[in-house]
Amino acid sequence: MNIKDKSGTTVVRREAAGEPVLTWRDRLVGKPLPTTEVSHQTIGKAIGLAVFASDALSSTAYATQEMLVILAVAGTAAFRFSIPISFGIVTLLAILTLSYEQTIYAYPSGGGAYIVSRDNLGEMPALIAAAALLMDYILTVSVSVSSGVAQITSAFPKIFPFRIEIAVFLVMLIMLLNLRGVKESGVAFSIPSYFFVVLMFTTVIVGFTRYFTGSLGVVVAPPELEMLHAAQPITFFLILRAFSNGTSAVTGVEAISNGVMAFNEPRSRNAGITLIWMASILGVLLLGITFLAFQIQAVPSEAETLISQLARTVYGGRGWLYLAEIVATTVILVLAANTAFAGFPRLSAIVAEDGYLPRQMTLRGNRLVYSYGITSLALIASFLIVIFQASVTNLIPLYAIGVFLSFTLSQAGMAHRWWKSGRLKPGEELKERGSVIKQDSRWRVKMFINGLGAITTAVVMLVFGITKFVDGAWIVILLTPVLVALFYIIHVHYKNVADRLTLENFAAAPRIRRHRVILALGGVHRGSLAALRYARTLSDDITAVHVAVDPEEAERIQKKWEQWGEGIRLVMLESPYRQFVEPLLLYIGEIEAQRQPDEVITIVVPQFIPGKKINNILHARTADTLRKSLLNTQDIVITEVPYQVG
Amino acid sequence: MNIKDKSGTTVVRREAAGEPVLTWRDRLVGKPLPTTEVSHQTIGKAIGLAVFASDALSSTAYATQEMLVILAVAGTAAFRFSIPISFGIVTLLAILTLSYEQTIYAYPSGGGAYIVSRDNLGEMPALIAAAALLMDYILTVSVSVSSGVAQITSAFPKIFPFRIEIAVFLVMLIMLLNLRGVKESGVAFSIPSYFFVVLMFTTVIVGFTRYFTGSLGVVVAPPELEMLHAAQPITFFLILRAFSNGTSAVTGVEAISNGVMAFNEPRSRNAGITLIWMASILGVLLLGITFLAFQIQAVPSEAETLISQLARTVYGGRGWLYLAEIVATTVILVLAANTAFAGFPRLSAIVAEDGYLPRQMTLRGNRLVYSYGITSLALIASFLIVIFQASVTNLIPLYAIGVFLSFTLSQAGMAHRWWKSGRLKPGEELKERGSVIKQDSRWRVKMFINGLGAITTAVVMLVFGITKFVDGAWIVILLTPVLVALFYIIHVHYKNVADRLTLENFAAAPRIRRHRVILALGGVHRGSLAALRYARTLSDDITAVHVAVDPEEAERIQKKWEQWGEGIRLVMLESPYRQFVEPLLLYIGEIEAQRQPDEVITIVVPQFIPGKKINNILHARTADTLRKSLLNTQDIVITEVPYQVG
Repeated sequence: MNIKDKSGTTVVRREAAGEPVLTWRDRLVGKPLPTTEVSHQTIGKAIGLAVFASDALSSTAYATQEMLVILAVAGTAAFRFSIPISFGIVTLLAILTLSYEQTIYAYPSGGGAYIVSRDNLGEMPALIAAAALLMDYILTVSVSVSSGVAQITSAFPKIFPFRIEIAVFLVMLIMLLNLRGVKESGVAFSIPSYFFVVLMFTTVIVGFTRYFTGSLGVVVAPPELEMLHAAQPITFFLILRAFSNGTSAVTGVEAISNGVMAFNEPRSRNAGITLIWMASILGVLLLGITFLAFQIQAVPSEAETLISQLARTVYGGRGWLYLAEIVATTVILVLAANTAFAGFPRLSAIVAEDGYLPRQMTLRGNRLVYSYGITSLALIASFLIVIFQASVTNLIPLYAIGVFLSFTLSQAGMAHRWWKSGRLKPGEELKERGSVIKQDSRWRVKMFINGLGAITTAVVMLVFGITKFVDGAWIVILLTPVLVALFYIIHVHYKNVADRLTLENFAAAPRIRRHRVILALGGVHRGSLAALRYARTLSDDITAVHVAVDPEEAERIQKKWEQWGEGIRLVMLESPYRQFVEPLLLYIGEIEAQRQPDEVITIVVPQFIPGKKINNILHARTADTLRKSLLNTQDIVITEVPYQVG
Repeated sequence: MNIKDKSGTTVVRREAAGEPVLTWRDRLVGKPLPTTEVSHQTIGKAIGLAVFASDALSSTAYATQEMLVILAVAGTAAFRFSIPISFGIVTLLAILTLSYEQTIYAYPSGGGAYIVSRDNLGEMPALIAAAALLMDYILTVSVSVSSGVAQITSAFPKIFPFRIEIAVFLVMLIMLLNLRGVKESGVAFSIPSYFFVVLMFTTVIVGFTRYFTGSLGVVVAPPELEMLHAAQPITFFLILRAFSNGTSAVTGVEAISNGVMAFNEPRSRNAGITLIWMASILGVLLLGITFLAFQIQAVPSEAETLISQLARTVYGGRGWLYLAEIVATTVILVLAANTAFAGFPRLSAIVAEDGYLPRQMTLRGNRLVYSYGITSLALIASFLIVIFQASVTNLIPLYAIGVFLSFTLSQAGMAHRWWKSGRLKPGEELKERGSVIKQDSRWRVKMFINGLGAITTAVVMLVFGITKFVDGAWIVILLTPVLVALFYIIHVHYKNVADRLTLENFAAAPRIRRHRVILALGGVHRGSLAALRYARTLSDDITAVHVAVDPEEAERIQKKWEQWGEGIRLVMLESPYRQFVEPLLLYIGEIEAQRQPDEVITIVVPQFIPGKKINNILHARTADTLRKSLLNTQDIVITEVPYQVG
């Protein structure tokens, strides 16, 4: 024990406390880490790509398939529309990339949609963005893990009936790893990420080679197309619905802009180049997979994923390369879920810091991670997996709308920022809501780019909301305002509490001059004498009170008290209805009514503590009931004097 | 408010408290009743029969059917053995009746198996009897309600799929009625009881008339016999198994001996005559039903009860008399379950009074009934109904073994009592374990009768245990010692506590001379100043302690404390692992190590109380955690000073 004096205050520092006692929980998630170990490591472009790209790149595992699911309603002939739709999505991707390049340079310390909206649009848009992002992170976990499990069950159809259990198990595993604290050291992440990129490119290149040499052929024994009833006509609405499903490919593009501070200096430049790399790989893979899927006449199915069909057709069967492709796809999908486990807790900690979520979410757990956020995310995502049967097709209608809502708000915020920057004189700076806006001569171009991004994503969001409304988008549309309302309610509560606790203009209450003690007696025994002994240190004004449920018992207590009560007056409360607490509360109420302003009343309750907690069920815990009933009464203090037995 | 003085003690009696405030629970179970309303009404023979016979008489609704279920294994030809088996059961009934006649005269204040065993055999046999009886009450509820529902679904086959739900609903309904307090006024009970007796006799008499006139015929469209695979040979073991199932008919015979004190004077004589009446009715009905069931070739089935087949054959279809018979049978079965709701809580209250069950079971609830016992019984019986699918056939193997175990112990206790009575001189009395044994000249005959009862029931119990072992009797055989062990564990706990609390040879501890106060500070605000204000009334030796999880926050607190802390010393506890409670516990441990014998330590914790309870989830409830961790430490008292907000 080390005691230091610092301006009159004693500071206690314990060297011995460096190795805290391990509980079973510590054994599961690892021993506690000291606060000083928060890491400030930065990474280069190659590793940055691996760390931040998994969310975006993994979308290629399901985006094409989900387009085809919609087109299949109009028969297999409609599948040819998947190619122009993919070009549309790649165009969208290009616009988004340009937009986010600017965010990366404007927010070198990380510009997520919540922060950008808060700085440039205000409280309400920021909260909408937060709600959208939190839902987005949850769905990223549900969709990615469900798709990952679908890859596994494609290779091993026998375990298809257990897909929900496997998916929930995977979420729990990722949760546990994150509670231990995954060091985003990058190296561990870059191996599976690059493994996936290399294998996916190999598949696409081999596929194209075989296509041009005419040896590609079609899927052998394709899975049955589940909804091949009377084909509906191909309408514009149907194409828009397919496009909406396909936009799930661009989810995750924003990840790099959130994590700019993780890059080596020059941060913005490195992050910006990485974003362009990521977008290029994503675009090429999406186009390649969609084109090849069409050529091999792949069919969307819950039983076998499109990636599985593609891989076994390109590689001519379920060989080692096929298996490697399945493993790589599964792993990148799990990594994508893992990134949400970094994003969700971090965002909820920021929102909680601003007072819109429970304060506990800002606490770092034993392992320096935001344990509450991690656990909440895992539970809600697992709940969704169970409800939606671990089916990507069922989950997709909920997914992209939140992402595009946050895109729109973030880009609109940036556009507004450039507009304000245009109002400034050269060299002038504007400080607003904690962020600094500098004059920028190219503000018109920049505002146009972000404005284009905002309008495009807003249109996509509307298209998505309308075309997928009945399929599940309504849930998100309904939940967003509910969440925002909840944020406000929490905020108002914290504000009220702060107002009631503040010491500004506070006149200290007068010193307490009278202390009245009521000793609640259940019986006369060593426990109650211990309580009496304590009560005597508080005041000389002590009244012992017994609730006489059983008249014979009451008489015994009275006699014993005459012998042991040290002359303290005893009041018997009759209880015709055999209640313990109510007569006591009535009596205390009467005493309370006579209380003076400088007087305080303490209720002393002997609290009998059995050696084993389980034994509590053998005793009526009157003290607990009394405590709960009286906590809400001003200037009445309850003191339990514990008496340990056994 | 009325204050009375009585030998120095103030007694507070409230007239206004006569009408307590009603809660939602009160609205459900009725308004609280004052203790003075405990009823002491007594009843005559006719009503006594109705009140106590429902358990025994209702057994006729399933006993014959459960014999046939076993015999069916050997094909329908084996059904003829049901008649000799029934005669065997009636013989058993006669022996039991004789035996219990003696108990009724020896225990005019009620001689249940627990009390008779406790008085005459000692602690261990009494506890075994208690375990057997408690399980018996539970199974009476499960079996009777299941059989009652089977009668209803026989008449209305469409609701067969909902039989479990209906059975659980009925149990909950009976529970609610008993929580309200069913007045065993008898009149309300006698109507359905006599309704059943009259209808059952009508059915049997009409059946015999039609049998002798040759117009009875057989069951039209009987239900399918479910287990008509390759018939097994008729073995002695099979007949014993059928006999075991049939013994369920005599369960409930002991009810009158428990309730002798409810009868008008001369109590024992009235109760004794009622027992003979009941046994006669039961014997006649059992023989009649079994004979007729054989004649009409009734078939045991889950889909239609034997009573339903008998009634529609005797009355030539599903007319009004058929429906009346079904309703009467269902109602008497529900009444039988209801008697268990009187017996179980009463027995558990007696056992708890003796210290072998949690003391709370002795408490009468708002409505003067033993609420804990009633609720426990309903929950366990419902659990069994769900587990055993509301099937009487599934439940029967668990049922009679406990009953016969309690019969054996009770009769053995009586036999032992007569033996001791034979050792006395004329006019001499023996006081033992609270009961008085008088010399009796006819002790040899009486010992023989009770001894015969004990041996017969012991043999039946063994037969039952062996023949039904694999079907479920093993559960009861296993649970009985487990329950007895539990009784002992509870008893030892209460004894230990009493030893630790007793004031015999107790030397009062020295008066406390030093009071050290530790004020746990989460922040400096009105709540903590209220706590400081309170702490000052306790002692001048106050130390404020803050756990510095966040160094910046700690610095702010330190500055604020300099302004508001009234010069009280502040100790900062560093917390490298961001824990709140552990550093405080370590610090308190160090203080505690220096504590003198005449010193007490109080930890004052400002407890912030939000206006609405739900808001507690928005705050880290450190005070609660601290309280739970410190309750087990001798001479450390925790005082929460509540500060109400909103």
